[in-house]
Amino acid sequence: MPSPDPAIRDTAERLAAIARGAYERGWTLGTSGNFSAVVGTEPLQLLITPSGADKGTVTGDQMVTIDAQGRPADGAGRPSAETSLHLAIVRARGARAVSHTHSVWSTLLSDASAPAGGLAIEGYEMLKGLRGVTTHAHREWLPVIENTQDWAAEAPRVESLLREQTHVHGLLIRRHGLYTWGSDLDELKRHLEVLEFLLEVVGRRRDGHGGQTWPS
Amino acid sequence: MPSPDPAIRDTAERLAAIARGAYERGWTLGTSGNFSAVVGTEPLQLLITPSGADKGTVTGDQMVTIDAQGRPADGAGRPSAETSLHLAIVRARGARAVSHTHSVWSTLLSDASAPAGGLAIEGYEMLKGLRGVTTHAHREWLPVIENTQDWAAEAPRVESLLREQTHVHGLLIRRHGLYTWGSDLDELKRHLEVLEFLLEVVGRRRDGHGGQTWPS
Amino acid sequence: MPSPDPAIRDTAERLAAIARGAYERGWTLGTSGNFSAVVGTEPLQLLITPSGADKGTVTGDQMVTIDAQGRPADGAGRPSAETSLHLAIVRARGARAVSHTHSVWSTLLSDASAPAGGLAIEGYEMLKGLRGVTTHAHREWLPVIENTQDWAAEAPRVESLLREQTHVHGLLIRRHGLYTWGSDLDELKRHLEVLEFLLEVVGRRRDGHGGQTWPS
Amino acid sequence: MPSPDPAIRDTAERLAAIARGAYERGWTLGTSGNFSAVVGTEPLQLLITPSGADKGTVTGDQMVTIDAQGRPADGAGRPSAETSLHLAIVRARGARAVSHTHSVWSTLLSDASAPAGGLAIEGYEMLKGLRGVTTHAHREWLPVIENTQDWAAEAPRVESLLREQTHVHGLLIRRHGLYTWGSDLDELKRHLEVLEFLLEVVGRRRDGHGGQTWPS
Repeated sequence: MPSPDPAIRDTAERLAAIARGAYERGWTLGTSGNFSAVVGTEPLQLLITPSGADKGTVTGDQMVTIDAQGRPADGAGRPSAETSLHLAIVRARGARAVSHTHSVWSTLLSDASAPAGGLAIEGYEMLKGLRGVTTHAHREWLPVIENTQDWAAEAPRVESLLREQTHVHGLLIRRHGLYTWGSDLDELKRHLEVLEFLLEVVGRRRDGHGGQTWPS
Repeated sequence: MPSPDPAIRDTAERLAAIARGAYERGWTLGTSGNFSAVVGTEPLQLLITPSGADKGTVTGDQMVTIDAQGRPADGAGRPSAETSLHLAIVRARGARAVSHTHSVWSTLLSDASAPAGGLAIEGYEMLKGLRGVTTHAHREWLPVIENTQDWAAEAPRVESLLREQTHVHGLLIRRHGLYTWGSDLDELKRHLEVLEFLLEVVGRRRDGHGGQTWPS
Repeated sequence: MPSPDPAIRDTAERLAAIARGAYERGWTLGTSGNFSAVVGTEPLQLLITPSGADKGTVTGDQMVTIDAQGRPADGAGRPSAETSLHLAIVRARGARAVSHTHSVWSTLLSDASAPAGGLAIEGYEMLKGLRGVTTHAHREWLPVIENTQDWAAEAPRVESLLREQTHVHGLLIRRHGLYTWGSDLDELKRHLEVLEFLLEVVGRRRDGHGGQTWPS
Repeated sequence: MPSPDPAIRDTAERLAAIARGAYERGWTLGTSGNFSAVVGTEPLQLLITPSGADKGTVTGDQMVTIDAQGRPADGAGRPSAETSLHLAIVRARGARAVSHTHSVWSTLLSDASAPAGGLAIEGYEMLKGLRGVTTHAHREWLPVIENTQDWAAEAPRVESLLREQTHVHGLLIRRHGLYTWGSDLDELKRHLEVLEFLLEVVGRRRDGHGGQTWPS
């Protein structure tokens, strides 16, 4: 139970609902993925899904409260192993909510795009669901970073990347999945669905569907 | 809350249920898409999903009432940015309900078919789900129009197109999605499902499935 | 409302549940498909889904009772246009329940297999879900018949085909869908799911997946 | 009803929930698949889904209790025909829960991988959902065994294979499906979802998606 504060409990429930919705679509199978939301800024406090939780049944009560170093504030549950990446995104982008999902399409495209360092997605109306994008002519760049088992060591590099590439709305980890974020939970959910949708479109297009007539 | 009138509230709830069903199938992810229904004719009044609403949880109470110029009648919420296209369809076709969805297959096929100006779908039994179609031998033409960010300017051209091509049941916007409509909410839902089904069939067929033996 | 008889009402509800399940999987979109069950034999009486019903929300109360000529017994609703095919299957095979679905894969494969007159499916464990099949080595033959808009005229030919090919468990109509049946509602549901599963397997395999090493 | 013991009833309900979840994703259509859990060790007792049960509606009350020879302890229902394989896995691996599913991707890949004797899956983060795997660099080997209709005769060979290949987390049966297991129900569910996810990734990749740049 993260807190008796009704606002924090509401955030926990809404975060859990986003996690369950992602599970429903097959983006967080096998207890994969994690979701966080900022609930305090001085000092920084986040709610995050506990490591190993089944995202199909996760509830607000299961959320773990962590501090700016990723330490559990209340001792209940363990924070996710990738906590440091959530914190890096919050610091670099001022994000208030972060998701990490493992979909089939993000797994495939993160690998296919790794040699180029990222994936460009351009010309789709759905791009307008990303914060600040006002036209389908937008070219979104999704950086791909190599996978690692030491995110604590890698997190500063990710934080630097996100401070430099201020226009990106998400990032892919190779053969691993997608990170995205938002200024609130609604924006996070929108970004997650927009990016997963676009990854499926691009993935199916590579499979021979559709024309290749859009300038790229 | 659109109105205390029980008939209008019922229409709002049924319109919301169609929107939630489309979300469930992945046709309106990321707050994309919009849905409208005519609830008054003199003067013209429509209910429409508010801009930016999550279609997975939208309810009848959230619907916005707009007039023939797309202005909110009750000041609650903002109408969708594509209101002018809904109004053009209502005027040109006498439609009582309109949907706009962003599915993976409509996104892919609207692009692949753009050079030809549209997509012909012929010979499928499912075509009989379209109003007035009585045989699978029917050839349905789905026009493709280029995407734009100024639908107010483009709407008169769409209205002209729909007045000329009186036989079409939907239209594709390139790399954007599908518009379809109906003489009531049931017909709208049927048209939406029929066209999305056929787009998936045609899309998978291009991928190498099935024979190419049907004369086209 | 088909009847006050509790057994018949139970059959109607279970038939409706099968229809809703098929809709959920995308096999009866756009009000397509129809489902029937025998509820009397002397004289013959069937419950059948009414023409044009939304299979996502159909209930037992909406079922139409028809006689051996497909005439509504109670005047409520219209029987499906394809009633004559349901009756032909009941007569030829002694079936007690019949389903007709329009899935993407049955649409694609019915067309691809039409030149050969049918589709052979062989060597899959799932085949054992078909009545009387006791080994995966079984070779199932799904005949394909051309689509028509005059099923009353075509039904006797289908009835003859099913009396001759006593081993078949379903049939495909070209670019239209699948018919299958069972000796009760459970067997019908099992046959429907088994055949739709196998059609997806065969369809994806044609797309380049999997080995082609099984002797065919 | 397996037992009045609340702990056993809870296990039965949780086992049924895993089966229903697998059905929802299309992994146990047509009454296919079966699921078991150890509820006693001296003597050995398992709960197992009854042969022919619809996995979409199966409940804890329907579970059959069997002994170390696969004989029903309470006479209610018949155990699954593949009981001997569940028992072999429990004996060889000390598993406390076993699942057998028939998905489209496991059917396709079990066949494609049969000539090589198995399928190697390497380099995916999702592999870390498998017990004891701590890095995405892990190479998982899924053995493929030929299908048979005499599992009682084949079970000792499977038991030997699993005693030798102590690192495997699942096995494929050709054109049939997947077996996996866990030290408890949560681990079983995780292994099932992880392996089915990875099979879809590998299957779609063979279809032309994604790069082929990972060393294999």
